[in-house]
Amino acid sequence: MKAIVKPGPGPGLVVRDVPKPACGPGDVLIRVRHAGVCGTDLHIAEWDAWAQGRVKPPLVLGHEFAGEVVEVGDDVKEFRAGELVTAEGHIVCGHCLQCRTGNGHICQKTSIIGVDRAGAFAEWIAMPATNVMRLDGIPTEIGAIMDPMGNAFHTVLTAEIAGAVVLVLGCGPIGCFAVGIARPRRARAVVAVDVNPTRLDLATKMGATRALKPGADVDAAVRELSEGNGADVVCEMSGAPSAVHNAFRLVRYGGRVQLLGLPAGDVPVNFATEIIFKGITIYGVIGRKMYETWHQMQRFLKGRRFDPTPVITHRFPLDRIDDALAAIKSGAAGKVILSIPS
Amino acid sequence: MKAIVKPGPGPGLVVRDVPKPACGPGDVLIRVRHAGVCGTDLHIAEWDAWAQGRVKPPLVLGHEFAGEVVEVGDDVKEFRAGELVTAEGHIVCGHCLQCRTGNGHICQKTSIIGVDRAGAFAEWIAMPATNVMRLDGIPTEIGAIMDPMGNAFHTVLTAEIAGAVVLVLGCGPIGCFAVGIARPRRARAVVAVDVNPTRLDLATKMGATRALKPGADVDAAVRELSEGNGADVVCEMSGAPSAVHNAFRLVRYGGRVQLLGLPAGDVPVNFATEIIFKGITIYGVIGRKMYETWHQMQRFLKGRRFDPTPVITHRFPLDRIDDALAAIKSGAAGKVILSIPS
Amino acid sequence: MKAIVKPGPGPGLVVRDVPKPACGPGDVLIRVRHAGVCGTDLHIAEWDAWAQGRVKPPLVLGHEFAGEVVEVGDDVKEFRAGELVTAEGHIVCGHCLQCRTGNGHICQKTSIIGVDRAGAFAEWIAMPATNVMRLDGIPTEIGAIMDPMGNAFHTVLTAEIAGAVVLVLGCGPIGCFAVGIARPRRARAVVAVDVNPTRLDLATKMGATRALKPGADVDAAVRELSEGNGADVVCEMSGAPSAVHNAFRLVRYGGRVQLLGLPAGDVPVNFATEIIFKGITIYGVIGRKMYETWHQMQRFLKGRRFDPTPVITHRFPLDRIDDALAAIKSGAAGKVILSIPS
Amino acid sequence: MKAIVKPGPGPGLVVRDVPKPACGPGDVLIRVRHAGVCGTDLHIAEWDAWAQGRVKPPLVLGHEFAGEVVEVGDDVKEFRAGELVTAEGHIVCGHCLQCRTGNGHICQKTSIIGVDRAGAFAEWIAMPATNVMRLDGIPTEIGAIMDPMGNAFHTVLTAEIAGAVVLVLGCGPIGCFAVGIARPRRARAVVAVDVNPTRLDLATKMGATRALKPGADVDAAVRELSEGNGADVVCEMSGAPSAVHNAFRLVRYGGRVQLLGLPAGDVPVNFATEIIFKGITIYGVIGRKMYETWHQMQRFLKGRRFDPTPVITHRFPLDRIDDALAAIKSGAAGKVILSIPS
Repeated sequence: MKAIVKPGPGPGLVVRDVPKPACGPGDVLIRVRHAGVCGTDLHIAEWDAWAQGRVKPPLVLGHEFAGEVVEVGDDVKEFRAGELVTAEGHIVCGHCLQCRTGNGHICQKTSIIGVDRAGAFAEWIAMPATNVMRLDGIPTEIGAIMDPMGNAFHTVLTAEIAGAVVLVLGCGPIGCFAVGIARPRRARAVVAVDVNPTRLDLATKMGATRALKPGADVDAAVRELSEGNGADVVCEMSGAPSAVHNAFRLVRYGGRVQLLGLPAGDVPVNFATEIIFKGITIYGVIGRKMYETWHQMQRFLKGRRFDPTPVITHRFPLDRIDDALAAIKSGAAGKVILSIPS
Repeated sequence: MKAIVKPGPGPGLVVRDVPKPACGPGDVLIRVRHAGVCGTDLHIAEWDAWAQGRVKPPLVLGHEFAGEVVEVGDDVKEFRAGELVTAEGHIVCGHCLQCRTGNGHICQKTSIIGVDRAGAFAEWIAMPATNVMRLDGIPTEIGAIMDPMGNAFHTVLTAEIAGAVVLVLGCGPIGCFAVGIARPRRARAVVAVDVNPTRLDLATKMGATRALKPGADVDAAVRELSEGNGADVVCEMSGAPSAVHNAFRLVRYGGRVQLLGLPAGDVPVNFATEIIFKGITIYGVIGRKMYETWHQMQRFLKGRRFDPTPVITHRFPLDRIDDALAAIKSGAAGKVILSIPS
Repeated sequence: MKAIVKPGPGPGLVVRDVPKPACGPGDVLIRVRHAGVCGTDLHIAEWDAWAQGRVKPPLVLGHEFAGEVVEVGDDVKEFRAGELVTAEGHIVCGHCLQCRTGNGHICQKTSIIGVDRAGAFAEWIAMPATNVMRLDGIPTEIGAIMDPMGNAFHTVLTAEIAGAVVLVLGCGPIGCFAVGIARPRRARAVVAVDVNPTRLDLATKMGATRALKPGADVDAAVRELSEGNGADVVCEMSGAPSAVHNAFRLVRYGGRVQLLGLPAGDVPVNFATEIIFKGITIYGVIGRKMYETWHQMQRFLKGRRFDPTPVITHRFPLDRIDDALAAIKSGAAGKVILSIPS
Repeated sequence: MKAIVKPGPGPGLVVRDVPKPACGPGDVLIRVRHAGVCGTDLHIAEWDAWAQGRVKPPLVLGHEFAGEVVEVGDDVKEFRAGELVTAEGHIVCGHCLQCRTGNGHICQKTSIIGVDRAGAFAEWIAMPATNVMRLDGIPTEIGAIMDPMGNAFHTVLTAEIAGAVVLVLGCGPIGCFAVGIARPRRARAVVAVDVNPTRLDLATKMGATRALKPGADVDAAVRELSEGNGADVVCEMSGAPSAVHNAFRLVRYGGRVQLLGLPAGDVPVNFATEIIFKGITIYGVIGRKMYETWHQMQRFLKGRRFDPTPVITHRFPLDRIDDALAAIKSGAAGKVILSIPS
C-alpha cells in the first residue's frame, strides 16, 4: 500500500509502497480516509533532536486519522466492516497504576502510532479494538482531528468553566479548538491571544469574545471582563516563556492555569509571588483522558455544540505531504488535513 | 409605607401602611423596585398547614426582590446610596458548621424574609449588607427573580453537564430556568417534561431540545439522544411521585439525580433496583449556595449566557397581589412579577 | 478437577469433578488457594427467586478467591507462573460508556464468575489477564476476600472521611470492613450499629468508637460525638428499611449517605423532609471501582493501614461447603473462608 | 497592658505598656493565655526587606494565640465570657469573589493581626466574632498554634491521601504537622526530608515512615514504598529551590505537588519535562480555608486523631521574646510558645 515514510535517519520523507498491515485477533483493520498533520510530523520530517532521540526509521508517520473498518480480528465483537471510526493513537499497557485509574494518557509504556510504531499516513492501519471509536455520523474529516481536539477538550473540561472568564494564550489549532469549547460550556467571556493575525481571525471565528495581540490590551480586556478579578481559567497553549508568566499574572487569586504549550528549556519562575501567594492550581495537560475525554468529545460533536471546521485551513492529498508540512511551517495554518482517496 | 401584609391567622392578604424599617449599623436600606411572587407566598396567603405551623402574623410577605440602595448603616463600607442591588433572602447564623463551610443554604438557624421576618412586598426593606449583591447592569426586574433562578443554577451547576443528556421533569419557573442554564453549559440535549402545554412552550423558548408530556415519548427521546444509555443528569422539579420514579428509571447507570420538587407525603422506593444497582448519585437541592451560586449567576447574566425573560409571563403593580396569586394558582403562569413604582 | 457445583435447578450443591479450564491467549490460569464464601453463594445454594432468574446450571460457584499463577496465555506479558494473585470477578465489556469512564463496576454487560460463568470454588480458574491483580506479599487468605473488602473500600473512599463522624449501619463482614477502613482514614469517630452482639464485638475489634444496638443510644452517641450536628457520613450496610430511615434521620444537614445494603421491596420515603430539606447527597454502592478501588486497597493492605483478619471467623476445606453456608446462615459469622490445598 | 511591640523602623522589639483594646459591637475581647512565635515574627523583629515594605510601626506583634473570652460586643450572640477560644488571624473583607466562595484565605483586602493591625503578643486582643473559634476542650497551648497547624491541614487535606505515598520536603513545624496529619488520613507511607537531624527526629515522632536527609536515600525510599511509581503527593515545605525540583522529579505521573515553602527569587523550571509530560497538578497553599480547614482541624484534635505536642520544643514567658526568636533562628526549634500568665 502507499504510505508516507521516514526512510532513515536524516531530514525528509518519502511516499512509497509498504506492506499492508495484518489484522491481529484483537485488532481492527481500517481503510484511512482522512488524516491530520501535526507539528510532531514536522519535527520527524525535519529530523530534529527530539526525533533523533525517539524515532526508529523506517517508519510510517501519522497519528491523527479516521476511516472505514474493513476487517476485524477473531476476538473483536464490538465492530464490523463498513463502520466509520477514529482511534486514540496512544497504545497503552493497561496494567500500570495510571492505566488502571483512568489516566492511561500518562502511561509510561505508551507506544504512539506514527512515532513509536507504524502510523496512519497510509492506505490502511491496524489498531487494537479498545483504541477504536465509532464516529456515529461525525464526518471522517472531523474524526481525523479528534486527537488534537481531544487535547483541547482535556484542557478545557478539566477546568471549571461555567461563568468563567477564560484566557487562551496561543491560537494554533489546539488553542482555537479550546476557544470553541470554552464558549459552549458557557464561559462568561473568552479572551484569545496570539501574535499572528491569521490565527486571531480563526479564534474570532471560533467564538472568542476578544482576539488580541499580546500586550496591554490583554490586561485591560481581562480586567474589564472579570470586574478586576483576573481570569478564572488560563489555557497556556503557546509554549512561549512570556506567555507562562502572563498566565500566572493574569489568572485571578484562586484560579486555575492549564499548561499545554511546551516551553523550550528552563523558564525562571517566582513561586512565591506567581503561584503560592495567589493560591492557584496548575495542571499539566498531555494527551487525552482515555476515554472520558473521547466520550465527551463525541457528545459535543453529535449534539452540534462544537464545530471545528473553521479551524481547517488546508486540505491536500496524501502525496502532497511536503505542501502540508510547508503550510504548518508557515505559522499561518490552522489544521491541515490529508485525504487518502480509495 | 405601603406593604402586602398577612394581618393575622387565616386566609387572605391586605395591602396596608406599615412603619418604614430602620437601617441598623450593618444594614443596607433598599427601595424595592420589583419583587417576584412565588408558590410560598400563595401558601401563606391561603394559610395552609405549613403556613400555620411556620408564620407568625402580622407579617410583610415577599422574599424575591431588587431595588435601589437609599441608606447604608455606619459599619457598611461596601455599598453606597444609588446602587441597584438584589439580596439573598436567607439570613443565616454565620457560625454553624454549615455556614462555616460554604453551605449556609442549609443553616438550621436560617431566618427567611417574608416568612420568618419582614419581607420585600413593600416600599422599603432593610437587609444585612452581607446578604446584598450589586446588580452591575442586570435590570431590577431580572434581579428580582435571582432567588428562584438561584435554585435552578444550584441544581444545574452542581451536576456535570458538559456533553450530557439532561432530563428536566417539571417546567414551572425553576424548571424552565434549569432548561435555559443547562443549554449554555452545554448539554448534548435537554429533554423537558410537563403535563401543561403552556409550560412546555416556555421550556421550548428556553432552549429545550424536546418538550414533551410524560409518557412513552419521553423514554424514546432519552433513549435516542443518549444512544440508549439514559439521561446523564435528571433534574426533578415537579414533586410528582411518578416523576421521582421516572427520574430513577431514566437516569443512566452511574448518572446523577438532582431532587428539588417536594413530593407530598411518602413515596415508596425500591432502593435496590432504582438506586443501588444503578450506582447513581442523588442530591437534595434547597436554596442557593451562599454565595458561590450567586456569583456564577451574576457571571451568566452579565455575560448574556442566560436570559430568563421568556419565563416572565405576568407583571402587576404591588396592590394587585390577588391577581398575581390567581395567575400562579392557574398553573399556566411562568414567573409573576410585582412592580413598586416610586 | 474438584469443584463445588450447582448441578441443576433446585436447592443444594455438590462437590464433583469437572474439566480443568483451558487458558486462552489473553488469560491467566490460576491454582486457587483460598476462596471467600458470600451471601450470594447461599442464595444460589438455596435456589431462591433471584437465583432462579439469573443462574443457568450446571455452574461452578465462587467469585472471591486468590491463588497462584500456573500458566499464562500467549498474549499475556504482565504475569508469569508462580506469582500469587487475586482477581476482580466482574468481567466487563470494556467498550460501553461506563467501562470507558472508569465505571466498569456498573457495566450492563457484566459477566460475574460463579454467577454467570464458571467460578472459583475449584482447583483452577482461568481469568482474563486484565482482571488479575498481583498480591505482592498480601497473604492469599486476605487476597481471597478483597472482593467484599473492595465493596467496603468503595463505600468509604467515595465519601469524605477526614475528621468525620461516621455511622455504619449493619456489621456483617462488609460493615466491619468499613469500620476498619474509616478509622485509618481518620474519622473523628465511628459508631457501629447491629442487632447481633457477636457482630458488634467484631466491629469493636475493627476499631469502632461505639458499637451499639439500634435505638436511642445510637442517637445519643451520634449527637454527642458530632456536637449535635449529626453524622457526616452514614454507610447503610444492613438493607433494613428502618436503617434506611435512620440513615436519613441521623446524617447531618449537607452530609452524605452511602447505600450498599439491599432492602427487599419498596421503602416509603419522605423525600422533602428526609432528603431535600437536609441538602444531602446519596450514593448507590455496587461492586468495586475498576480499578481505582483495587489500587487503593492494595496500598492500605501493603502499608498495614488495614487488617481484615479479625473479621474472618470461620475456615473450612473446599468439601465442607455445607458447613460454610450454615455458618453464614446462622447470622453470627464474620467472613467464611474455604481453603483448597494443593 | 503589657505587649511585645515593634516601636519604630529598624531591628529589635520591646516589651512595654500599651492601651488595652476596646471591644467593638461585633467584637470579642480575649485574655491571651498562649501565643505561638513564627518565622514572620522574626522577619519583623529583624526588620528585613519584606517587613520594611509591609509593617507600619508602632505595632503589637503576634498572630497565633488562644485565650479566654472576657467581654463580647453588643451584637455578638455566639460567645460569652469565660469560654476558651482561638481565632483566625486573617481579617477579610467578606464581599469579594474569594470571600464569597469559601476562599477568604486569598482575599486581597486581608488585614493580618500582628502584621497589619495590633496583634496577640499582649494581655488582651479584640477580634471580630466571626474570626473566633471555640476550643471545646482543646488546651490553649494547642489552640495557640492552630494557625500554623491550619496551614499543614490545608496542605494535606486538599490532596487525596488515602493509601498514598506522601513525601514531605522540609520538617519545620508546619512540615512536622503535615507528617502527623498525613499519617492519620492514612497514607500508605510518609517520607520526611530535612537537612537538620533534630527536625528529622521530630518528624519521626510525628509518625514518618522514613526520615531522611536529602539525597539518593530519598529516591530509593520513594521508589521502594511506591513500587517504582513515585510519590502520589509531595508537600514542599522548605522553600529550597532544589526541593522544588525534587518535588517535580519524585512525584508520580498524574500526582500532586502542594507548594507551601517560599523560594527566594526565581527558580528555573523545565515546564515540559517537570510538569506537563508528567500530567501533574500543582497547588499553591497560603493560609487556611476559612473556615473549612478550621472545622476539620477541630475534629481531628477533639477526636485525638492528631497530637501536635511533640512539635512544641520551647516555651517562654511573654517577656522572653528575644530567647524565643533566638530559638527559631537557631534552626533546631520545632514550635515555640509564649505564655501570658494572668
